[in-house]
Amino acid sequence: MNIQEIIAKKRDKNKLSKEEIEYFVQNYTNENIADYQAAALVMAIYINGMDEEETTNLTLAMAHSGDILDLSELGTVVDKHSTGGIGDKITLILAPIISSFDIPVAKMSGKGLGYTGGTIDKLESIPNYKTNLTIEEFIQKVKQNGIAVISQTLKLAPADKKLYALRDVISATESIPLISSSIMSKKIAAGASKIVLDVTCGIGAFMKNLKDAEKLAKMMKKIGELAHKETICIITNMEEPLGKTVGNSLEVIESVEFLKGNMEQDVKEVILELGSYMLKLAGKGENIKQNKQKILNNIENGKAFEKFKVWIESQNGDISFLEDYKKLKKAKYIVPVLAQNNGYVTSLNAQKVGEISRNLGAGRIKKEDIILPEVGVVLEKKVGYAVQKGEILAYIHANNEELANSQAKELQKVYEIQNNKPEPKKNVLKVI
Amino acid sequence: MNIQEIIAKKRDKNKLSKEEIEYFVQNYTNENIADYQAAALVMAIYINGMDEEETTNLTLAMAHSGDILDLSELGTVVDKHSTGGIGDKITLILAPIISSFDIPVAKMSGKGLGYTGGTIDKLESIPNYKTNLTIEEFIQKVKQNGIAVISQTLKLAPADKKLYALRDVISATESIPLISSSIMSKKIAAGASKIVLDVTCGIGAFMKNLKDAEKLAKMMKKIGELAHKETICIITNMEEPLGKTVGNSLEVIESVEFLKGNMEQDVKEVILELGSYMLKLAGKGENIKQNKQKILNNIENGKAFEKFKVWIESQNGDISFLEDYKKLKKAKYIVPVLAQNNGYVTSLNAQKVGEISRNLGAGRIKKEDIILPEVGVVLEKKVGYAVQKGEILAYIHANNEELANSQAKELQKVYEIQNNKPEPKKNVLKVI
Repeated sequence: MNIQEIIAKKRDKNKLSKEEIEYFVQNYTNENIADYQAAALVMAIYINGMDEEETTNLTLAMAHSGDILDLSELGTVVDKHSTGGIGDKITLILAPIISSFDIPVAKMSGKGLGYTGGTIDKLESIPNYKTNLTIEEFIQKVKQNGIAVISQTLKLAPADKKLYALRDVISATESIPLISSSIMSKKIAAGASKIVLDVTCGIGAFMKNLKDAEKLAKMMKKIGELAHKETICIITNMEEPLGKTVGNSLEVIESVEFLKGNMEQDVKEVILELGSYMLKLAGKGENIKQNKQKILNNIENGKAFEKFKVWIESQNGDISFLEDYKKLKKAKYIVPVLAQNNGYVTSLNAQKVGEISRNLGAGRIKKEDIILPEVGVVLEKKVGYAVQKGEILAYIHANNEELANSQAKELQKVYEIQNNKPEPKKNVLKVI
Repeated sequence: MNIQEIIAKKRDKNKLSKEEIEYFVQNYTNENIADYQAAALVMAIYINGMDEEETTNLTLAMAHSGDILDLSELGTVVDKHSTGGIGDKITLILAPIISSFDIPVAKMSGKGLGYTGGTIDKLESIPNYKTNLTIEEFIQKVKQNGIAVISQTLKLAPADKKLYALRDVISATESIPLISSSIMSKKIAAGASKIVLDVTCGIGAFMKNLKDAEKLAKMMKKIGELAHKETICIITNMEEPLGKTVGNSLEVIESVEFLKGNMEQDVKEVILELGSYMLKLAGKGENIKQNKQKILNNIENGKAFEKFKVWIESQNGDISFLEDYKKLKKAKYIVPVLAQNNGYVTSLNAQKVGEISRNLGAGRIKKEDIILPEVGVVLEKKVGYAVQKGEILAYIHANNEELANSQAKELQKVYEIQNNKPEPKKNVLKVI
C-alpha cells in the first residue's frame, strides 16, 4: 500500500478500504505522508465524495489517531456539540440544566477559531475559572458534582487537527464527509457514549441551506450508528445570531439570565429541543414534550441555576459576579445603534454580525490571537421586531472609541428594516 | 486574488482566467504558494479538467516562468519532441537528417528520467562529447555547422519543473491538460518556432490507447495554434520497443547504422514521417511522399551521415568509434535470450523491456542516479518474426553476471510466442 495508489483510487472515484483510510490517517499523523499528498487526497475526497462507510472509517481512524478519553466509569455520557454559529451560548446553559437531572456532564471543549470565542473562551471571562484540570481532577469533579467543563488537554484526534488546518488553506472546508468526520472523530475521542448534535443552518453557519444541513445531519447520524454511538441531530436556524448577545462575557451574562428565567425566545426553543433529546438519550424520559416541561421546571425551581453555581465554583470560578455583573470586565465604550426608519426588522445577517464582533476583538483569526472577553454586541431588536426611527436597535461594546463608532455604523447597515412584518422564524428546523 | 479562491473555482468546475493562471504559476515558482496548495489545485485540474484556452494560458505562463531561449537569429527553427518511449533514438537520427537539408537544428535536451536515458545521456556515451556549451557557443555552432544539441543549461520553464515533480508524487501525471502544457511550455521556452510532436501510444507510452493519444495530440496542436507555433502531431506505435536496441551506447550504434542505411523498419517509418513533416514546416516541400524520398536520398548519398560526423566532432566528440564500435564502453557480460518454442513473436511488451533495461542500469529512477551507458538490450527478433525453439531472440548487455542471467530470464518471459502469425503492426497511427 502507498499513498500514491490511495490518491489515484479516490481521484478515479473509487471507494477506499478501511485499511487504506487507516494507512493514510496514521502516516499523515506521523508525518510519513507529506502535506501536499494529503492535500491532493483531500481535494479528491472533496470533489468525488465518500460514502457512509468510508466516512465512518475516516472518523474512527482520526478518533484513534491520538488519546481517547475513557469516561466509562461515569456511566452513559451524553455529549452535545454545535456545528457553530454566532451568539451560540447553548453549552453554557445546557450543561447545568442536564446536570440538574443527575446526568453526568463531562465536557472537553476547544478554544474558538472564528467570529467569536468558543465555550472555553466564554468560561475564561469568569474571574479565576480554571479550564486546565488534569484528567483525574476532571473525572473526580464530575463524580463529585456531576459536572465539569475543561479545555482540551489530551491530544484528541491529532489527525483531525492537521487535516482541519490543511483544509482551511486549500479551500476544502465545506465537504459533508470531511466536516462530519471531523466533528464525529472529536466527539468519539472525547469519550461520548451518546451524542446530540446542533446542526446550524443559515447565513451564519457552515451549512447555508436546509438541504445541505440535512445531508450533513444524516451523514453524522449514520456515522454514529456505524460507530455504535447513538446520535440525534437537531437542525437549527442560524440566519440571525442566536439570542441577544455576541461576545464572550456578554454571552455569559445572557446565559446566567436565561438560567434565572429570562429566556430569549430563540435560545429557549433551541435549549428545550436539544435538552429534551439529551434527556431521552440519557434514559430520563421518552416523551419530548414532557421533557421540555421538565427542563422548564428545573429552571423555574432554580435547580439548573444552582447547578451552574456549583459547577463554576468547583472549578475555582469567582461567582460573586452573579450578584453584580460589573465584577466581570467591562468594555470602555458602549455605543448605541439607532434605527434609521420605522418598520419591522426583516433581516439581521448573522455572518455580518459575527464579523463586527470579531473586528471588535471578540474572536480570533489565528490561534495565537488574543480575545478581548469584554467586547461584543448586544442586540436589543431582532428579526420580526417593530422599530421606530431613532430607537435603539443594539449596543456596540468596544475598548476603542473609533472602532466602536465605525462598527456601530456597520451594524446599522446590517439591520434591514422594511414596512411589512416578516413571517415568524422557525428556530428548530428539523430533527434527524 | 488569492490561491484559495483559485482552488475553489477549479474545485467547483469553473474556468480559470488568464490572470488567475498567471498568478498561480508566478507565485508557485517564487514559493509564495505552498506545495500543498499547488497539490490541491493540480488535483482539481486533474479531476475537473481545463479547456483549450486555460491549458494554453497555463502553457504560456509556465514557458515564461524562467528563461526563454531566443533563436530568432537562426531563422525558422523546427523542433521535434517525443512524449517518450522505449528504444526511442529518433532525435539522434533525425537531427543530422534535418540539418542535411540546411534547416537549423538547435536542440536543448534534458536528461532522461525513466526506463532509459534521454538524448543527452545517449550522446554522453560518445567519448568526449560536450553537452554543456554556453548559449553563445551553442548558437555559434548552429550558425557554423547547422546543428548543435546540448543539455538544458538555461532555467527553462522552472514552474513546469516544480509541477512535474509534484504531479509525480500526488498521482496526477496522466492528465491531458497537465501533460500537454508541460511539453509545450518547454518547447516554447526552448525557442522553437514550429513543432513536430511524436505522440507515442501503447503499453510503453504515457498514452495507452489511440483515443487518449488523439486527445493529447489535439490539445497540443490547439495550444500551438493559440500560441502561434505551428504544430503537427504524429501518433506512433509504442506497444513494443522502437528499433532493435534499448540502452544508451547501444542506441547510438543503432542510430549510426541507420544513417549508414541499415534501417529497422519501424524506426524507418517513424523517421520518414516525422522528418517529412519537419521538412514541410521548414518550407522545404509540401508533398509528404516526395519529402520521404528526399530523406531516403540524403541517407543513401551519405549527406545525413556526414552531418552526423560534423555535429559530433564540432561538440568535441571522438568520432573514431564510427570505424570501430569497440571504442565505446562495452558491457562485461553479453547473455543471449533463447526462444522456448517455435512460432511467431506476437507480443514484446515495451514497458517490461524498459523495466529490464532500467534494472540493468540504463535508466534512472531518481535524478541523482548514475546511468551505465554500456548496458541494455539488443532485440534480434521483434513482433511478427518467426522463431524456432532455441533460436536467439535477444541479448542482454550487463556489467554483472547474476543480473545478466536474471534479466535474460525476465526478457524470455516478455517474449510471447504463438502459432499464428500476428497482423502486421502499424508504426504510424495517425497524423493530427
